[in-house]
Amino acid sequence: MLTYNYENVEGPIYEYIYKCIKNDILSGNLKANDKLPSKRTFARNNGISTITIQNAYDQLIAEGYIYTIERKGYFVSNLNIVKEKKTVSYNIQIPKQPHYKYDFAYNKMNTDNFPFSIWAKLGREVLSDKKEEIMQIAPCGGLTELREAIASHLLSFRGMAVDPNQIVIGAGTEYLYGVLVQLLGRDKKYAIENPGYKKLMNIYQQYEVTPQFINMDKSGVDLDSLRESKAEIAHISPNHHFPTGIITPVSRRYELLSWANEVDGRYILEDDYDSEFRYNGKPLPTLFSIDGCEKVIYINTFSKSLTPTIRVSYMVLPVHLANMMYSDYSFKSCTVSNFEQYILAEFIKRGYFEKHINRMRLLYARKRKQVIACLQQSPIRDICDIIESNAGLHFILEINTTVSDKTMKGRLEEQGLHINTLSDYYMTNENIREHLFILDYSNIQIEKLSEACEIIYQCIKTT
Amino acid sequence: MLTYNYENVEGPIYEYIYKCIKNDILSGNLKANDKLPSKRTFARNNGISTITIQNAYDQLIAEGYIYTIERKGYFVSNLNIVKEKKTVSYNIQIPKQPHYKYDFAYNKMNTDNFPFSIWAKLGREVLSDKKEEIMQIAPCGGLTELREAIASHLLSFRGMAVDPNQIVIGAGTEYLYGVLVQLLGRDKKYAIENPGYKKLMNIYQQYEVTPQFINMDKSGVDLDSLRESKAEIAHISPNHHFPTGIITPVSRRYELLSWANEVDGRYILEDDYDSEFRYNGKPLPTLFSIDGCEKVIYINTFSKSLTPTIRVSYMVLPVHLANMMYSDYSFKSCTVSNFEQYILAEFIKRGYFEKHINRMRLLYARKRKQVIACLQQSPIRDICDIIESNAGLHFILEINTTVSDKTMKGRLEEQGLHINTLSDYYMTNENIREHLFILDYSNIQIEKLSEACEIIYQCIKTT
Repeated sequence: MLTYNYENVEGPIYEYIYKCIKNDILSGNLKANDKLPSKRTFARNNGISTITIQNAYDQLIAEGYIYTIERKGYFVSNLNIVKEKKTVSYNIQIPKQPHYKYDFAYNKMNTDNFPFSIWAKLGREVLSDKKEEIMQIAPCGGLTELREAIASHLLSFRGMAVDPNQIVIGAGTEYLYGVLVQLLGRDKKYAIENPGYKKLMNIYQQYEVTPQFINMDKSGVDLDSLRESKAEIAHISPNHHFPTGIITPVSRRYELLSWANEVDGRYILEDDYDSEFRYNGKPLPTLFSIDGCEKVIYINTFSKSLTPTIRVSYMVLPVHLANMMYSDYSFKSCTVSNFEQYILAEFIKRGYFEKHINRMRLLYARKRKQVIACLQQSPIRDICDIIESNAGLHFILEINTTVSDKTMKGRLEEQGLHINTLSDYYMTNENIREHLFILDYSNIQIEKLSEACEIIYQCIKTT
Repeated sequence: MLTYNYENVEGPIYEYIYKCIKNDILSGNLKANDKLPSKRTFARNNGISTITIQNAYDQLIAEGYIYTIERKGYFVSNLNIVKEKKTVSYNIQIPKQPHYKYDFAYNKMNTDNFPFSIWAKLGREVLSDKKEEIMQIAPCGGLTELREAIASHLLSFRGMAVDPNQIVIGAGTEYLYGVLVQLLGRDKKYAIENPGYKKLMNIYQQYEVTPQFINMDKSGVDLDSLRESKAEIAHISPNHHFPTGIITPVSRRYELLSWANEVDGRYILEDDYDSEFRYNGKPLPTLFSIDGCEKVIYINTFSKSLTPTIRVSYMVLPVHLANMMYSDYSFKSCTVSNFEQYILAEFIKRGYFEKHINRMRLLYARKRKQVIACLQQSPIRDICDIIESNAGLHFILEINTTVSDKTMKGRLEEQGLHINTLSDYYMTNENIREHLFILDYSNIQIEKLSEACEIIYQCIKTT
């Protein structure tokens, strides 16, 4: 006969009884097919209502610990319990981000520069005015409102005439590269720039694609190397190459388009990650806008222009690929929340985005000048050249030294100074150019830079 | 000699000159290697400052339309222009969502039920208090704050003791399935439930995985069928199967764990998509929480409990897989924006999530009762059985008829009534059970339901 102690029971009695019986089953006190007391007997013997017992038994039945046979009663189930339990260590190794006193490689948005108050205002408005719309599931390519806003931004800012339905919004460019691999096929040959954005290798590899490498010359992607790679999809950044800063001139752009048109199935993936920041004249025309043959896929992000922590990127597909997306992948859910899509759409539509870009351009241009002035007054002024292209948020510092990059970086890190060199961005060990330091100045503090120049100078001198 | 008309010029003069020269180059008026006038000559002849000409030339050089040779002057580049342009139709075919007067298949959150004002309040607070944190890039698994909040929710709500670092946050379960395929390997054999959530087929296929099917019996996944499938990864929903509503009892759960432990490399993917909504007793213990051998990956979403338009889901990895994630995929960026991660973390931490679930449970339980009462008063009351398991947001209506599902659905759609049947959810054409209608009642209007029952009755009578 089951009897339990009901003193000091916390929570509902039925739950307590349920737990007691469950424990008796799991510990083996109650064995498979043992008959349990009837609800009425149990209730009477324990001074508890039959309803309470009923609730406890129902829970045990629902979870399969007991079963019932009509007119016969309740019985313990036959549980085939896994007895041996391995110990779980919970020892999860999380890679730590190293912290440096002077970090010229770390790329993050300065908190002061994000338009928090406008974002908060738009968030409030969207949450009060767009309740119904927020609850409607967005199409696979993203909300129409945001795509329209992006299309009109592209027209006024980049001279790109684009149907909003060509635009696909996704949670970051890394995610969108994956969508593209699905759309174009994992069996195609992809190629990326060398030197280039090294993380691309990892990103493609996670999609089980092994990209080829295309060498760069001073105008961008080298056509001979591109042909040699046998690439079908060339993933390039003609508008501001990272890390060299090269801006591909128009003649080379047409050569690239010409390459894409030689063979069916070739595409150019134009990565326009930081084109918003150019300081003289207007931004360069995109490959997409001078392509008349549906050969260019344009991809851009709000990571550089707003903040990398917002996770919104978009691509513009040629019409036939947009149709393929809608016919084959319309089951896909858009990966960006409606809340943020609406806020961002309003942010662009009401002109805040343009204002923000203009403000950031001025800020970065000023910062750029300060950085150059600081370098020119520093002890390294006579042994370094600044290679810059008036675009983007970084430039290259060529240092006249015989110290190898590896040695140099080791010495600098000992002093708490972290800076990347061009040699870090080569995909292979061939033809590596040394002594070129990459200065991401978007978040540099001038006082620290001046101290850093002194450290660099000392590290070179100790040759 | 270049001369242009400067009357009625809108915008800066340098841009106008830049455009005129560019047009002359593109139209062929200026040919490759033609010499342009010197800045001074150009300026004098056109009555414009040399600075303006300099700016126009600089832009043309940056874009590659012209080049300069020191001490010789400026020359037109040799552009290898793609002449033939195909016409772009912009005729993008977007699949339209059909609209029905009575839609019992469409699953969306009722606008009245989302806690907009609390969300807005938390958004305001996060944007004013967490500026610095929002700008810091999140680890690949998501923000620590949100993972801690989810871990403590899982403990109190699901009895799951979980290290926050086992949790991976992503933009929707569809995205997370893809991460899992990367983690476990595309070459593994995956299996899904039959009948089951049909979209899973599409989702796995986009990752180039062809899942096997596992038949269901009345306790859930059939072990013989599971063994026959030769599956290594079983993707199942033991806590409330869609669409049958089956809740897998504990004994079967242990059998499943036993299966997973028979061979190395086997895993169970426990999809717990709507477990928050159970009406009697407390929720069932998850497979994850009774697994002692790191064989279960738990996955859940805020789509059902908050709204599908928020795009936040999470999975809980066994420790060794969490370590694999951090060692092999730490380069991955989290796909959910920091803004929403912080808002959601606060929403859970301050108890709003629990309150919301409790409120929704009451609402849904009441709705459920109303729906059942409505059915019991309707003309179909004598020819239908309600099969329900007191969980989730749908149940099954078994209709006593000889009319095939296909005919029946056709007749109903003619009357503007859309409802899914169990037969829609079979992955193959074998052993299909007919006459079982799936009623997602989360968003049903009772008046419409009563009209709909009349329509169903008429459609059966016309046999």
